[in-house]
Amino acid sequence: MSSFRTMEWTNGNLHLLDQTKLPCIEEIVICKTMDDVCESIKKMVVRGAPAIGCAAAFGYVLGVRSLVENFNFENMSPDSCSSLVSKGREKIYQSLLKTRPTAVNLEWALKQMQRLDYKEHESMGSYVNAIESKAIYLLQEDINTNLKIGEIGADLLGQCRSVLTHCNAGGLATGGYGTALGVIRSIKSRFGDISVFATETRPLLQGARLTAWELTKDDIQVTLITDSMCGALMQTREIDAVIVGADRITANGDVINKIGTYTVSVLAKENSIPFYVAAPWSTVDLGTHSGGDVEIEQRNVNEVRGFGDSVWVQENLSIFNPAFDVTPVEYVSAIITERGVIRGSVDLQEKGLDYEF
Amino acid sequence: MSSFRTMEWTNGNLHLLDQTKLPCIEEIVICKTMDDVCESIKKMVVRGAPAIGCAAAFGYVLGVRSLVENFNFENMSPDSCSSLVSKGREKIYQSLLKTRPTAVNLEWALKQMQRLDYKEHESMGSYVNAIESKAIYLLQEDINTNLKIGEIGADLLGQCRSVLTHCNAGGLATGGYGTALGVIRSIKSRFGDISVFATETRPLLQGARLTAWELTKDDIQVTLITDSMCGALMQTREIDAVIVGADRITANGDVINKIGTYTVSVLAKENSIPFYVAAPWSTVDLGTHSGGDVEIEQRNVNEVRGFGDSVWVQENLSIFNPAFDVTPVEYVSAIITERGVIRGSVDLQEKGLDYEF
Repeated sequence: MSSFRTMEWTNGNLHLLDQTKLPCIEEIVICKTMDDVCESIKKMVVRGAPAIGCAAAFGYVLGVRSLVENFNFENMSPDSCSSLVSKGREKIYQSLLKTRPTAVNLEWALKQMQRLDYKEHESMGSYVNAIESKAIYLLQEDINTNLKIGEIGADLLGQCRSVLTHCNAGGLATGGYGTALGVIRSIKSRFGDISVFATETRPLLQGARLTAWELTKDDIQVTLITDSMCGALMQTREIDAVIVGADRITANGDVINKIGTYTVSVLAKENSIPFYVAAPWSTVDLGTHSGGDVEIEQRNVNEVRGFGDSVWVQENLSIFNPAFDVTPVEYVSAIITERGVIRGSVDLQEKGLDYEF
Repeated sequence: MSSFRTMEWTNGNLHLLDQTKLPCIEEIVICKTMDDVCESIKKMVVRGAPAIGCAAAFGYVLGVRSLVENFNFENMSPDSCSSLVSKGREKIYQSLLKTRPTAVNLEWALKQMQRLDYKEHESMGSYVNAIESKAIYLLQEDINTNLKIGEIGADLLGQCRSVLTHCNAGGLATGGYGTALGVIRSIKSRFGDISVFATETRPLLQGARLTAWELTKDDIQVTLITDSMCGALMQTREIDAVIVGADRITANGDVINKIGTYTVSVLAKENSIPFYVAAPWSTVDLGTHSGGDVEIEQRNVNEVRGFGDSVWVQENLSIFNPAFDVTPVEYVSAIITERGVIRGSVDLQEKGLDYEF
């Protein structure tokens, strides 16, 4: 396991390690309401597709709990009660869903929560208990999934001694352990030392701040580079593999991940370095054919104008700030999921047959 | 011409627009001694291969002037005088040369200065006047060279309406006007509007701070992106060409330029976008066979740890910080010089026959 907790459900509140403040300050944000959770996801106090999914599940619990507390369902007719809960649940679902548009795990986790039917419970209290248990289960499941991805990834990449990763697909991006960094943790524990090159990942510097922090915390050798150094590094140093996470994987195998991932994949191909994606099956979106069909979140341009309180560009400058890009399936050597290793787009559809979204 | 002065020789001192403070503060650093110039080059108050060459020429003038002022050559024997000046000149040459190891224009400009023989002058005063005139001539020549590169580049790229550039190969990187940005200025003045995408160019943010500033200053449409967005931009937007400068071009046509240039060239090739380099002939190093033979400057890792007073990574993190990378000739569509357009490595050697280093 990773030596820190990305999130904890404590006394009915969601405790989040504030990732906007790492690595300089280790601070906990306590979310007592669904709005707190929405705000934390939007502000990227919690980020990373699987972590967002888990946090949203707890946000759903907080939303429903508040709904139940605000009405005296005992005195309502079954129809009024049903209508009120339905509407409330839908509003909660939509509020959480729209916090980040790209990560499919968010939708996946919320659908898991919606599937619990309040009508099957004898009281609202028992329904709230059930969804709370479900959210706790999803968090634990996410960690288990990461451990499984790590195991399968280490089988595949065990020989790698030097890998490059982009952004943070680590314990901080998940319930714990991590996807891409989970594979690295598993390689280290099974095969010994591994050296990681981490891109800083502008604009929000998840690589410099989060990946470097969590690998150092777990005593894994990490060297930081700027995003622009990937090419030179692959040209001049021995890099055995690239491994990254994913925010969404479409039916044809295209990978939507942090802006810059496509760039790294092209460089890897040009330098004959295998390019791996590690992600839970919940990242797979079989309902979307290819990367071109995915809405890419455009974030506030202030993120590019500087960092934190530092601003280094002039006023009124035209700026782009897409949060993600699309790595077409032909650049991906393999996708490592808890269900096994996927190569190419055909497998994805096949493996999807027994998959219930 | 560009609407600002990168450097000016005024009252026997070198005035430099402080590029470490742009775009927020427009401040002039006045160099009164050779050491001031060395310091300004090292600290990147002035940067960009051609600008460094011009600044070093003025540094040479300041060094020799101080040498002459400190000794009473009038009362020395011709032999003592000759020995003292020889040693002094060599020390000045070496001090300036070692300020930045990669840019070949620096060496080129200093050699131009060394070629002026003090023995051919009737007095030290007349020698100092001659080298001062030479430095002024080199600065004017650099601007003329840029104008010629711009003209030739606009012939070649006149149809381009949307180009991507990396780092700053502009008026700020040269005596004025610029190489890559000079071509853009020429296209704009001859063919009308052109839209430029500028990478921010971590770690020192020359794209965000300098390219964006000078293009805005000259009313050229510019959009800022992070370095990691190059791939996504080429994938999703119409980019007609990439154009960058060079710090050194080796005999086989390899291009040494700001870290990240190789990455952009690979992405351009993958997306069938032509990749142009604009540089004065003084950037060509026929004495070095290929990029692999060039020493790449490794800069202080603190540059990657943050920017300015902002630091966002933990202490004691392992970091790489190469200032340049090598773009192999096969990724370069053409090199635009004041002598004409060069394609491939054969031309380079041929055009070098009449070239005196």
